[in-house]
Amino acid sequence: MPRQVDHDARRTAIADAVLHTAADRGFREVTVRAVAARVGASTSLVTHYVSGRDELIGLAVRREVETQQARITVLTADRDPRAALRAVVEWAVQGPDPEAHRTWLAILVGAMSEPVIRAEVDVFNRWWDGLLRDLAEALDPRPADPALLVDTLDVLIDGLVLAGLEDAGGWTRRRRMRVVEGVLGALGL
Amino acid sequence: MPRQVDHDARRTAIADAVLHTAADRGFREVTVRAVAARVGASTSLVTHYVSGRDELIGLAVRREVETQQARITVLTADRDPRAALRAVVEWAVQGPDPEAHRTWLAILVGAMSEPVIRAEVDVFNRWWDGLLRDLAEALDPRPADPALLVDTLDVLIDGLVLAGLEDAGGWTRRRRMRVVEGVLGALGL
Repeated sequence: MPRQVDHDARRTAIADAVLHTAADRGFREVTVRAVAARVGASTSLVTHYVSGRDELIGLAVRREVETQQARITVLTADRDPRAALRAVVEWAVQGPDPEAHRTWLAILVGAMSEPVIRAEVDVFNRWWDGLLRDLAEALDPRPADPALLVDTLDVLIDGLVLAGLEDAGGWTRRRRMRVVEGVLGALGL
Repeated sequence: MPRQVDHDARRTAIADAVLHTAADRGFREVTVRAVAARVGASTSLVTHYVSGRDELIGLAVRREVETQQARITVLTADRDPRAALRAVVEWAVQGPDPEAHRTWLAILVGAMSEPVIRAEVDVFNRWWDGLLRDLAEALDPRPADPALLVDTLDVLIDGLVLAGLEDAGGWTRRRRMRVVEGVLGALGL
């Protein structure tokens, strides 16, 4: 009987190695060689799964995007629009661990120079903006300007992620949540 | 008569090369060799001015920080606290060109792994937070919680910078300013 190869586990290990490398040192340092070294495999094992560096990076970023989408989907299911919007904001601000925040920042920085990352981020952003817009439009009472509400929530989340990365020690959970409560309150959420 | 050497101009060219390299490719790629190549000089010319990579980076980041501080100081002089706070926020959101935003993001990312950058960012953040706190406390009427107001402004600015970097085309000046106006209005500014 031939030895069973768990291809899914290998793909996961490869994607994890890409994301850890990117979080630590940026996507610029992600190469087939660096990823092979990180998973303790040959470069030809890596290229058995991906055609090259672009596909390697695209695969890993898509996996991270899909992981985040799945979490957000669970979080918003079976909640009224107001509670779902609050849950999304609170999750984005305090839910992911610092590693997830660093990974996401690496993806955003990488998207500025690597089209393969840009394409995945664009897919995520369209999905995210659609989700928030649908929730904003379903609010009762309906806000005067749902698009402006979504923009403001996006800025709030981005700002808290970046502030936390700048000074993770200073921006305690309590301090972040006071800003969240202040802005959500001012927005009528 | 010996040839005059304009040391200030050389220091400026070296610092500019550091910042351009960092904005394009991150501080990880900033080395004495890379900077010498960018200014079209030998590595020994660069090390005539700095003892090594750390001093090279520290010099350039300090220069950028001081440039920004000087601009902000001019902007807030001779304005009442409310107008000064608004001016600072509007400047941060739309004033600097995209290159300045990319440079600043590179500095923030670099500060996560390079202590010499961290030290300069900490100096800037203390100055910035002090400036905003003084302005917030001088508002009439005095806000119930000046520290929370400053935190919210910091998050707003960080969020607009990051959102603009994610999708510079989509986040037009008008769209940013609508978010700024909405939040400042909600905060009573």
